[in-house]
Amino acid sequence: MKIIENGSVTSPSGFMAAGVHCGIKAGGKKDLALLVSEVPAQATGVFTRNVVKGHSLQVTMKHIKGKTAKAVVINSGNANACLGENGLNNAIRITEYAAGLLECRPDEVLIGSTGVIGIPLNVDAVLSGLEKSVKALSRDGGHDAEEAIMTTDTIPKEICVEIDIDGKPVRIGGMAKGSGMIHPDMATMIGIITTDANIKYELMDKAFRQAIDKTFNRVSVDGDTSVCDMVILLSNGTAGNNCIETENSSYSKFMEALEYVCTALAVLIARDGEGATKLIEINVKGAPTFNDARLVTNAIAKSPLVKTMFFGEDANWGRIITAAGYSGAQFNPDLADIYIGDIQVCKNGCAVPFSEEKVLEILKGKEIKVLVDLKQGEFSDRVWTCDFSYDYVKINGSYRS
Amino acid sequence: MKIIENGSVTSPSGFMAAGVHCGIKAGGKKDLALLVSEVPAQATGVFTRNVVKGHSLQVTMKHIKGKTAKAVVINSGNANACLGENGLNNAIRITEYAAGLLECRPDEVLIGSTGVIGIPLNVDAVLSGLEKSVKALSRDGGHDAEEAIMTTDTIPKEICVEIDIDGKPVRIGGMAKGSGMIHPDMATMIGIITTDANIKYELMDKAFRQAIDKTFNRVSVDGDTSVCDMVILLSNGTAGNNCIETENSSYSKFMEALEYVCTALAVLIARDGEGATKLIEINVKGAPTFNDARLVTNAIAKSPLVKTMFFGEDANWGRIITAAGYSGAQFNPDLADIYIGDIQVCKNGCAVPFSEEKVLEILKGKEIKVLVDLKQGEFSDRVWTCDFSYDYVKINGSYRS
Repeated sequence: MKIIENGSVTSPSGFMAAGVHCGIKAGGKKDLALLVSEVPAQATGVFTRNVVKGHSLQVTMKHIKGKTAKAVVINSGNANACLGENGLNNAIRITEYAAGLLECRPDEVLIGSTGVIGIPLNVDAVLSGLEKSVKALSRDGGHDAEEAIMTTDTIPKEICVEIDIDGKPVRIGGMAKGSGMIHPDMATMIGIITTDANIKYELMDKAFRQAIDKTFNRVSVDGDTSVCDMVILLSNGTAGNNCIETENSSYSKFMEALEYVCTALAVLIARDGEGATKLIEINVKGAPTFNDARLVTNAIAKSPLVKTMFFGEDANWGRIITAAGYSGAQFNPDLADIYIGDIQVCKNGCAVPFSEEKVLEILKGKEIKVLVDLKQGEFSDRVWTCDFSYDYVKINGSYRS
Repeated sequence: MKIIENGSVTSPSGFMAAGVHCGIKAGGKKDLALLVSEVPAQATGVFTRNVVKGHSLQVTMKHIKGKTAKAVVINSGNANACLGENGLNNAIRITEYAAGLLECRPDEVLIGSTGVIGIPLNVDAVLSGLEKSVKALSRDGGHDAEEAIMTTDTIPKEICVEIDIDGKPVRIGGMAKGSGMIHPDMATMIGIITTDANIKYELMDKAFRQAIDKTFNRVSVDGDTSVCDMVILLSNGTAGNNCIETENSSYSKFMEALEYVCTALAVLIARDGEGATKLIEINVKGAPTFNDARLVTNAIAKSPLVKTMFFGEDANWGRIITAAGYSGAQFNPDLADIYIGDIQVCKNGCAVPFSEEKVLEILKGKEIKVLVDLKQGEFSDRVWTCDFSYDYVKINGSYRS
């Protein structure tokens, strides 16, 4: 597997994209992204579990049942959510308009919106922006598209990798936004993965769901899940490899590359969490069940006390065992070991002497790993999160406008 | 029911208390509280559900099975938790020592510890502090005891009310600490309720659990539950009323007064949450089940996005419906109404125009009520929380020492 330098969603063959300013965001910033596959692509997606769902997201959930997409439209700066029938009609109108311009069916257009909830979307701006976008479509447009979906993101989140299948180069590219917004209603995540791999729909879908479960679903910035979260995978088969139809070695290669792409984007989201100064990787092993492992990583990653402790660079491990203890997981605390970096701070649920200087050195770093070993089973889990800083409060306490 | 001016845990008859400095906290601050009932009192308690439990708390959970207590010892500045056998032995030694001084059985002594996890407790300091405390015991000692259990608390949390039962004045007093610590491992809450009521054990216990469920269990500062949380109720029967043996009108009066005391202390804990600038009351009604109502209030009260929004005085109600949506509660979002104070900001899950100035006026207040009406059933719930400020990050990011 090789990493494509400066890779994006348009690095795989057969994809074009554009990112333009249509008039939702202030200051002429790009706010509308269009991604198009030259041939209709197989499409699958995972969506927020929030019972409140944005109107654009609802339309995409419906369209994706057809398993085929030609294009994805994403606007930033407005969530198009909690607006009643108007919001739904606007989402439909945008997909119809895009379909007209791209000469495809409306249900082959997927749509995402990210921004403030409850403010009407300027649909005319989006429609004229679509005309501009179609004209601007290019094989180099991936970076512009990424720029157009960014909100409070401080770094772009893009990647492309290449693997060899049957002697053919097969690429998987991706872009994501999160976790934050100019109007930070939601720690909103949107991810688009593209591939030119030729792969049976069911296998593509299976690989995607497995990858998501270990990557995008293992990131926490503040524990709030939005009404607009979605990750979409498009595969257009233009790489020309023999179709992957069984779980053979080509499938394993594809799966590994897909997970690599999703991991890279997920880690970028945690690293770029609102106000984050550090990337924190929480590992749990030795859990009696997989669910217990997840409960423990989730509780630690969400705890404001743990997250402020990392911001303050304080080896206050009592907060880590406390979060594990209230996580709902069943375990015997008298067996638990805890490590910050490679330094053990707790053994069998009990304090052990450690060098404060050595731990401080680890805590002063930009990437910190925590390991909780429950020593009660075979199950493990990993979550990426970030610290909780003054800037998180500042960003999220600010006025909507 | 009347409120006793300057009331405390020693306002009910037959209780004495003291609060002294024994040497755990720096700067000569009081760090050891002793509460004694002149006659053995009936005792019940509720304890943290965290699977990690402090050693002192474990000893109290054991002793309280005897249903009788003569005294409660609480130290602040050290949680006596995650210290292995040593921690347990120290907790036992303290109760034995106190029993010797007070001429009662060790299992009639309850013990609580609150502070940093994983640092050995200076047990000799506590033992000599106990001698000092016994000498200092007085009918006016309630306030000193409260002072000795405070940590990052900025206001004392005390109250006493009086009701009339069979022509006899019956009092219920209480003190609490939380939510914060000098060494803020835990948003630790400790509450002690005293009463001179003469009431059958089973009824006292029932009334207590009901009251806790609606009060101390409905407060959230940061969603972290500690390894030392406990609320204890002692009733010594010295008021001389006829024993309350059935759920008659005297029981109702007692229940109402007990709930009043617990509510007052719980609200004080939320108001004094670490870094809090506002008290927020989250109300949910119209939920299809009681559990759904609780899930929604809990999610809203815990959401960092909602809490920073109140700090920033921003009517960003999309965050409230978003939190309700991911709470796990089952409801149709298209029916939900949301009010900030008395201003409706969302109707049937959809934005409604509202006066930003009027809402801003409400948000600028020190006490803010939020109502989410799901309009799908008969169940309601109420939670008290506070906003999330820079100071929360500052307090909790600071070094342990």
